Formats: sequence, C-alpha cells, structure tokens
Amino acid sequence: MKKSTSKFVYDLIIIGSGPAGLTASIYASRYKMRNLVLGKQAGGTIGLAHKVENYPGFVSISGLELMQKMEVQVERLGAEVFYDPAEDIKKTAEGFFQVTTDLGKSYLGKTLILATGTTRRKLGIPGEEEFLGRGVSYCTTCDAPFFKGKTVALVGGSDGAVSGAVHTAEFARKVYLIYRKDKLRAEPIWVEQAIANPRIKTIYNTNVLKIEGDKVVRKVMLDRPHEDSRELTLDGVFIEIGGIPGTSLAKIIKVALNEAGFVKVDQQMRTNVAGIFAAGDLTDFRPTFQQVVTVQAMGAVAAASAYQYLRKEQAPLQRGA
Amino acid sequence: MKKSTSKFVYDLIIIGSGPAGLTASIYASRYKMRNLVLGKQAGGTIGLAHKVENYPGFVSISGLELMQKMEVQVERLGAEVFYDPAEDIKKTAEGFFQVTTDLGKSYLGKTLILATGTTRRKLGIPGEEEFLGRGVSYCTTCDAPFFKGKTVALVGGSDGAVSGAVHTAEFARKVYLIYRKDKLRAEPIWVEQAIANPRIKTIYNTNVLKIEGDKVVRKVMLDRPHEDSRELTLDGVFIEIGGIPGTSLAKIIKVALNEAGFVKVDQQMRTNVAGIFAAGDLTDFRPTFQQVVTVQAMGAVAAASAYQYLRKEQAPLQRGA
Repeated sequence: MKKSTSKFVYDLIIIGSGPAGLTASIYASRYKMRNLVLGKQAGGTIGLAHKVENYPGFVSISGLELMQKMEVQVERLGAEVFYDPAEDIKKTAEGFFQVTTDLGKSYLGKTLILATGTTRRKLGIPGEEEFLGRGVSYCTTCDAPFFKGKTVALVGGSDGAVSGAVHTAEFARKVYLIYRKDKLRAEPIWVEQAIANPRIKTIYNTNVLKIEGDKVVRKVMLDRPHEDSRELTLDGVFIEIGGIPGTSLAKIIKVALNEAGFVKVDQQMRTNVAGIFAAGDLTDFRPTFQQVVTVQAMGAVAAASAYQYLRKEQAPLQRGA
Repeated sequence: MKKSTSKFVYDLIIIGSGPAGLTASIYASRYKMRNLVLGKQAGGTIGLAHKVENYPGFVSISGLELMQKMEVQVERLGAEVFYDPAEDIKKTAEGFFQVTTDLGKSYLGKTLILATGTTRRKLGIPGEEEFLGRGVSYCTTCDAPFFKGKTVALVGGSDGAVSGAVHTAEFARKVYLIYRKDKLRAEPIWVEQAIANPRIKTIYNTNVLKIEGDKVVRKVMLDRPHEDSRELTLDGVFIEIGGIPGTSLAKIIKVALNEAGFVKVDQQMRTNVAGIFAAGDLTDFRPTFQQVVTVQAMGAVAAASAYQYLRKEQAPLQRGA
C-alpha cells in the first residue's frame, strides 16, 4: 500500500534571503510560481553595510533598510519568507526536493535556487566582530568613500586587497596595506600602483592581532613592530582575505563546485543538477565583482530559468493557497 | 607648430541614459572617474513602462519615476547628464574618443560605454503610438499582470511572442495570438503550450491594421476576417516583434556586431575596440532576457571594466571640474 502524501509542493524553494534570493522570489512570483524563501537573516552580506550609495534608485540607504524593502515586496507578491535556515536537502521518490530546516520543518519543492552567498573570511581576532560597521569593513568598493581624509589599514595581499588599497587611497589620507607574507600576490599592475602611491604604505610579514577602539576603531596591534611600534593608530580596517562560499547544502545534493569551491553555473544560472539553479556570491559567475545589482541579475535569471524548466517539464504550476 | 588643446577630457563618456547607462555612471563616479552621460530622453525603454513592480526595492513605481530617481543619484555623485544625443564618434590623434552631439557640441573621453538600448520594433499602424501605455505594450513580462481577467491580442510568432502569450494567458481571460504567417516559429514547447491553452486563440495569416479606443484600447482591425469579423474587441495589444538595437554609433567606430545586429561583448562587457565597452539591450549578452536588473548589472560591470582599463593603461584619472 502506497502511502499518499498531501503535502504542499512549492514550484520553487529559494535558499538564501540576500538580494539574489529575494530578487529570484520577485521574478518567480511574477511568473506565478508558488515560492518560499528560507533565510538565515534579512539581507545577507549587504544587510550589514552601514550605507549603500551605489544601488540605483536610492541616493543613500542602509543595507538593512534596502533589504527590508525588498522583503516587503517579496511578501506583497505572495511569497513566504521564513528565517529558518535550510539544513538538509534530499530528493524524494516522487522527484521533489525536500528541504529540512534548522527548526526541523520540511518543505517540498519542484525546483531549487541556491542563493546562500558567502561569508567573508575573517581574521578571527579580538575586536573584528565588535567593530563591524564601526570601522571594520569587508568591502572597499562599498565603504572606501566613507573614509575620506582618514587613515585605514587594509589586510590582505590578493588582487582584491591590493586593488582595494589603490581604490581606498583615492579617499583615505593614508592606507596601510598589511600582508602576512613578504611579497604581494596581486597582479603586477596593482602591485606597482600600490607601491608607487605615496598614500599607501605596505607592511610585509605582519599580522594584525587585535582591533581596538571606543565607539569606533582607533588602533590595531601588530605581531611585529612597524617603525618601532606594534601599535598603529587609525580610523578603519578593511579585511580583504576572500570569501567562503556557503556551499554546504550544494555539496549534500551533489551540485558541482569549481576548484575554488564556488558553485558552477552556466549563463542561465543552471547547476549540473536538473531543477537546481544558483545565484549570487556563492556561484562562479563573476566571483570578483559581486555587487547588489549583479547578484540581483543572477537571481532574476535563475527564476526565469526555473520557470522555463518547469514549463518544459510540463509540470503544472501550483495554485491556490 | 603643434596646436595645443586645453579641452577637458572625461575619463568616461556614457552614451545612453537608460538603466544600463545610469548604473554605469553611478559605478564610474564611485570609482572617481569623471563621467558624462549623453542621452535621448530620461529612462530609455523602461521610462515608458506605466508600472514597474519587479524592481527590487520598490513595490510599485512608474518607469519614469524610477529613472528620475536614478538621474538624481547620478548627478548627486558628480556626473553630468545631457539630453543631447550623440550623433558621431571619432578617434582623435591623441587617442581620445570625440563624441559629437545632436546640438553640435563635442566632448572628449578616454573610454566609452555604449548603452543606447533598443527601440522596440513597431507595427507602424494607426493607434500604436497613441495608445502606448494605455493598452499597447511591448513587454509581456512587464505588463501582463495588469491585464488580469481582460482580453488582449499578442502580435508576433517568435519565442518571445509565443512564450509571452502563454505568460499573458496566466492573467488575461483571453489572448488572441495574431501572426502574419501560417506557422508559429517559436520553440515547439511554446507552440504546443499555446495551442493547448484554452485561453489562447491563435489567428494565422493575419495582420493588425489599426488600433482603436477612447481613453484606452477598445479594439483592433484585422486585414482578414476572424469569425466573420475584421474587428476584434479587446482591452490591450502586446506587440512582440523584436527589438532594433541602437548600433548606428557602434558601426561608425567599428565596434563588432553579431549576425542579429547586436554589439558583441565578453563577460566584462568589452567590445572588440580597446577602450569601448557596451551594456544593456544593444548587446548580445542575454538578448532574450533584458530586465532592469540585468542591464544594470551590465552597466556596473562595464564601468568596472572601464576603470580597470584606465588603471592598467596608467592613464591618470581626471580631477577637478
């Protein structure tokens, strides 16, 4: 005797509630796909930005406020958003994706969009978490303009770090580029420019041990002296040591990753698994230029692809409540 | 004796003032590139949409209002926007791009972003222009939800047209799919679905001659009778007969186009001409899914690429007024 299930099946379950996931939901709802968003917190990485001044339509808005607006819009369009992160995914005998959450709920979906973003790689030092948004930032493109005339440190030696230092030096009076090795590993063009720039002082073979301040960042402690002092007085610390893609769920369901650990997608945001799409920071699509507008574009394309996938599979879209 | 020129040279001239061009300007300004936007009118194609409900951050906004917000933002960030469209481009002996406008002004730029969009291919029949935004639309993705329970015609037979008819039939009570030939040329999957859909009635070998109404569209006249009448009573007409990319300037400066006439770009939005980038509807990047968020992403990427191009060329960025 076959056990029948009357459980509701979503056309689409979106895992992740940053701008990629929420934009995917907006488009999915417009395509009349019943969709559910499961997230950890409102807004993903951008929700942490104290000011967003490069999102078209808003001269200046906090990351959190921008994401709250998107969430209202997502819900108005009929989708559900639960802040109960997905913990497990499996494929059912009927061919649906069953997503189990942190709170132990489970949901069925005909398609999935993975939009779990990245977490910025952290130094893991005292003060780093405490001063996030109060001098500590993980994004020069986002926040360099707020340090006009100030002194900042930039921790890292990659392309992102060194080009970020050059960019930051267009605003800041002084940029300490602090790298743990004896040679920057960025493209030569960036290294040359950083070295030629009188506002940038590179400190090699050095680690930051601690970030200190009061209401905002005031200084960092180094593991070896720079100009006779282990203490560096400054106004901000950019940490550019890469991102860690949120791919634990992707791995469970056998979605292919590239060598750097990002989800492989094609231009239509399809993964290697039929019915699973991905969008945003966790993908290998433009991993070096992840902005709100670029991840939103991926979210919209992923939703359109999920819609076309369901249409081509002739699966009727879910109606009613 | 060499004639010296003291003429101001922009880091970047953006040709086109739709969402791709304005987003490129926002990003360029954040990179501290002196940039100028030359446009025909505020907002490009989206500026004509009576309601935009899929742009993240705004539950519902008119296309014009959205674009006006972006324009304010562009100007606040220090860029200039002139509604004086570019008419000619040439390369100067110094290696700059000289752009001449409709009003006969000329501007010099170190880099260019072409963002001149498309114009929707028009039927060129009476009533088409008059009822634009009052029942006539060129975008089912944008406007189908506004025809809930209504009767509409969709003119065309391509993928875009037939999938658009299927999409529209999720809202409209009745969709007449009117095509001038005897066989729809869309993908079979779309054709099957359109034919199987009881809400869609396909009318072959027929052209629409005229759109009539009062405040809004009320009927169309056909060139041959359908069910004994050349008159079809309805509430809206979608025209999906393709877009014409705005590539006249691209051709002048020898930017390569694909076979369909769209500007060829790589993932960094570079064209075949060094220093010239392109973004938005006129490119061959996702020509079948042009949405505000996708063209904005292209604009942001094009600006980042122009910035990196200038940096790598070691050209100092232009400062001051």
